[in-house]
Amino acid sequence: MKLSARNILAGKIIEVKKGATTAHVRIAVGDAVITSSITNEAVDELGLKAGMSASAVIKSSDVMIAVD
Amino acid sequence: MKLSARNILAGKIIEVKKGATTAHVRIAVGDAVITSSITNEAVDELGLKAGMSASAVIKSSDVMIAVD
Amino acid sequence: MKLSARNILAGKIIEVKKGATTAHVRIAVGDAVITSSITNEAVDELGLKAGMSASAVIKSSDVMIAVD
Amino acid sequence: MKLSARNILAGKIIEVKKGATTAHVRIAVGDAVITSSITNEAVDELGLKAGMSASAVIKSSDVMIAVD
Amino acid sequence: MKLSARNILAGKIIEVKKGATTAHVRIAVGDAVITSSITNEAVDELGLKAGMSASAVIKSSDVMIAVD
Amino acid sequence: MKLSARNILAGKIIEVKKGATTAHVRIAVGDAVITSSITNEAVDELGLKAGMSASAVIKSSDVMIAVD
Repeated sequence: MKLSARNILAGKIIEVKKGATTAHVRIAVGDAVITSSITNEAVDELGLKAGMSASAVIKSSDVMIAVD
Repeated sequence: MKLSARNILAGKIIEVKKGATTAHVRIAVGDAVITSSITNEAVDELGLKAGMSASAVIKSSDVMIAVD
Repeated sequence: MKLSARNILAGKIIEVKKGATTAHVRIAVGDAVITSSITNEAVDELGLKAGMSASAVIKSSDVMIAVD
Repeated sequence: MKLSARNILAGKIIEVKKGATTAHVRIAVGDAVITSSITNEAVDELGLKAGMSASAVIKSSDVMIAVD
Repeated sequence: MKLSARNILAGKIIEVKKGATTAHVRIAVGDAVITSSITNEAVDELGLKAGMSASAVIKSSDVMIAVD
Repeated sequence: MKLSARNILAGKIIEVKKGATTAHVRIAVGDAVITSSITNEAVDELGLKAGMSASAVIKSSDVMIAVD
């Protein structure tokens, strides 16, 4: 599958924290850590857990820019 | 200013391409390049141009996860 | 590649309209037509054109509900 | 009320699952099932429950495209 | 039609600027001006123009918080 | 820090409700109340609580328009 999303950042999952319906998954990408908020169902279906290789996928229209 | 957004990735702008109303800004962050789609007005107001230090800012609920 | 996005709706592209930087792609999914706004770059990289099979991918947190 | 959102997909609610603050609502639309993540407050205010007619509303800029 | 979106801010359109595919619409809401980026098609279908009453509609998961 | 987001609405926090992983923060902005759904971690890191001055930050591409 190829995606239109311009940002697919490969890394490794370092934490999966499930809530009542929403989970937070943290992925180490290079020197950065990216936090993702997804459904518990997605965590279960993909079998996400710490140590797995995974990518953060972000649509360009969801990326803002900040400058000092 | 401090932001609730969990993902603020510092890097350097490598390209700014303005369209009729929407601009695409590409930022090198570590080994990755992140594409952002923002308004032309934001580009002008922040004076964004290639070579500037800038950060990509992404809300956690806009980050998906992909696995092979 | 498997995605955390809960909504992957298979259909057929019926129109691709590129603007200066942003393109609109319309996909027929069952009896519905779904409009997607993505970058021109994504259209070029994926070679999107009318008649192709493609899916609309939508994160659950981007879906609202309306009732009469 | 008329909305700028291009994607308003009529269907029937098949499941409402409330969490601590965030609810997941699933709507059958044609042969597809669409998952929506919204606030518990919205579920209560609209009185959402399985069996109700409802529409999934999605802004075009939140729709990605995938191809095989 | 009732919407799950928690933020429906009534105001008056003060500017509509169409691009090649994407339009920017500015709405005065109280003392604030809110900028919206939508499709040209939505502008045409709703007949949006300066002076019209309109509301800005925003899903809660798209609202960040900033503090000094 | 300056942001590309076009909508930064200054107000005062009137309620913070934390869930299992996701919090809802309500901000009074002029005569309106804006609801934001963010991570519990952001609430803790920014020390958000009722009575604080804060701004709602919204990217233009996340703002829809409604008309009667």
